[in-house]
Amino acid sequence: MTASREIRLKSRPHGMPAPENFELATVELPPPAPGEVQVKNLFMSVDPYMRGRMTDRPSYVPPFELGKAMQGGAIGEIVASNAPGFAPGDVVSSMLGWREGFTAAPEAAMLQKIDSHGLPPQAFLGVAGMPGLTAYVGLLKIGLMKEGETVFVSAASGAVGQVVCQIAKIKGGVVIGSAGGAEKCAYLKTIGVDHAIDYRATEDLTAALAEVAPKGIDVYFNNVGGDHLAAALNAARPFARFALCGAISMYNDAAPPPGPSNLTLAVGKQLRLEGFIVSSHFDMMADFVRDAAGWIEAGKLTWRETVDEGIENAPRAFIKLFTGENFGKMLVKLG
Amino acid sequence: MTASREIRLKSRPHGMPAPENFELATVELPPPAPGEVQVKNLFMSVDPYMRGRMTDRPSYVPPFELGKAMQGGAIGEIVASNAPGFAPGDVVSSMLGWREGFTAAPEAAMLQKIDSHGLPPQAFLGVAGMPGLTAYVGLLKIGLMKEGETVFVSAASGAVGQVVCQIAKIKGGVVIGSAGGAEKCAYLKTIGVDHAIDYRATEDLTAALAEVAPKGIDVYFNNVGGDHLAAALNAARPFARFALCGAISMYNDAAPPPGPSNLTLAVGKQLRLEGFIVSSHFDMMADFVRDAAGWIEAGKLTWRETVDEGIENAPRAFIKLFTGENFGKMLVKLG
Repeated sequence: MTASREIRLKSRPHGMPAPENFELATVELPPPAPGEVQVKNLFMSVDPYMRGRMTDRPSYVPPFELGKAMQGGAIGEIVASNAPGFAPGDVVSSMLGWREGFTAAPEAAMLQKIDSHGLPPQAFLGVAGMPGLTAYVGLLKIGLMKEGETVFVSAASGAVGQVVCQIAKIKGGVVIGSAGGAEKCAYLKTIGVDHAIDYRATEDLTAALAEVAPKGIDVYFNNVGGDHLAAALNAARPFARFALCGAISMYNDAAPPPGPSNLTLAVGKQLRLEGFIVSSHFDMMADFVRDAAGWIEAGKLTWRETVDEGIENAPRAFIKLFTGENFGKMLVKLG
Repeated sequence: MTASREIRLKSRPHGMPAPENFELATVELPPPAPGEVQVKNLFMSVDPYMRGRMTDRPSYVPPFELGKAMQGGAIGEIVASNAPGFAPGDVVSSMLGWREGFTAAPEAAMLQKIDSHGLPPQAFLGVAGMPGLTAYVGLLKIGLMKEGETVFVSAASGAVGQVVCQIAKIKGGVVIGSAGGAEKCAYLKTIGVDHAIDYRATEDLTAALAEVAPKGIDVYFNNVGGDHLAAALNAARPFARFALCGAISMYNDAAPPPGPSNLTLAVGKQLRLEGFIVSSHFDMMADFVRDAAGWIEAGKLTWRETVDEGIENAPRAFIKLFTGENFGKMLVKLG
């Protein structure tokens, strides 16, 4: 492998990203120098947070540079190694997605050898990877969910949400999941969600929540924001915990929408709203992968994914995240 | 003492409360039955949260009833006792303010004997009472303030805010206080506040905060809401804690204002916003009063109060909370 195609950021999107914001280029991969490896990517991930890196503003991760290949989670296979601890055939995760392959030092690529636990490689970009860990950390460490509690999950059929719902059931909770469309809501029922709310068919989310959870909710897992957050504030029981992990409804708004007008309810109800980023909790990864592999083996944790093929289709796969065309974890198969 | 004048809620205010929402009435006090005491009130408190109880809506405390005496913190003296553990001359706190006296069972009045620690009785409605405990709980238990951290306090010259500022200094913090007007800001400097911001003379609170705290803030003590919360979100350092304890700017708004449009910053900065009500933390009262009495004796904790006289002036004293005419804890002297 000496040539690799990659996707570069051509221009910064305003609002919704479009295909013309990206360009395809081909680079030659040098053989690995001492201390380096060469990796052929098998799958890459597209994630909503990448939209933030396409904008030039201060954030917890630096913006993507114009004219350069973007970055993101990927699973690949070592094809040549000049670095101790890595051998051809090893399956690895890295942060050098958006390209078919790369030659790099392991630490520069954030390379990690994968112990597959019998799972297919792309699971480590989804249910057993960052989205899964996000669900695990947000529900259990930030949301402090306890047995018997009622959990409300927005974007419940998404890569993170579907894992939140299933872990909440495994932990003995009552789960309300919100998703857009009948097909996604039907899927939620198949993974054990007690009450599925189709937000596209619902005018008043607060009323919909009150109907299925008349006593209110104890935990809200927010990966949407907007109306869902306002409804969750209305539905919250005293001392409820809100795990805030990105607000997909806001990524494409050039001007941010006003926050929920009922935020003041957090005082009287003594709510805790806490934002988190999964990379601050990588210390829980080993525990999580062990738990997740066990739950998958026991049939308690399943997943849905949408797979597009070919690096040239990665921009369109990314855009699908915002049009709702994907179902579960959105992946691009590269090799 | 057999007659007591009291203030009743005559009509529910819309927006800013007005004198005509209240009426003065006189009742006869019966002698204490077995298990009861008769109390002559010395001071009563007026507090912003009482505005919430004037509106008929579900909240963490039930609304005041029309045509009946309102309730609130008061300090009084036992004048007759038919209850064990209480003797004439004892100084007590109760929740039966808004009246000159009462006959009641101790538990119905939430009667507590005061160990004065040498402080004047009204201190137990302010610096050594609920406002002081609110400051202590919010800064140390909810805000988890640590030595060397930067603390931003809104309504910093108020009954709660002035105690927050001083405890933050005692605990080794850098303190930024916001208050309305030059006089209040000058007062903040006298109690050790490092940077006083006159929000009435400031167009851009975010810029004002960035100037005095270029590295950002670690703790925000919110007793205002609105613009201050938005500016605090902008100024927050990663993992900052926001103690949310009432939003005085919202009490009189018939329609709630939109929440901060930058709430989504809580995700990337991994902020914790937590609402609290002081009555959930009464278990900390003994620790707090012991600490506060020691700090007062050492000259490290002082306070300002505004005292109006006579039960007939209590409604106007209450209204002053919202027009900013008070300075520090607002009290009404009754006896």
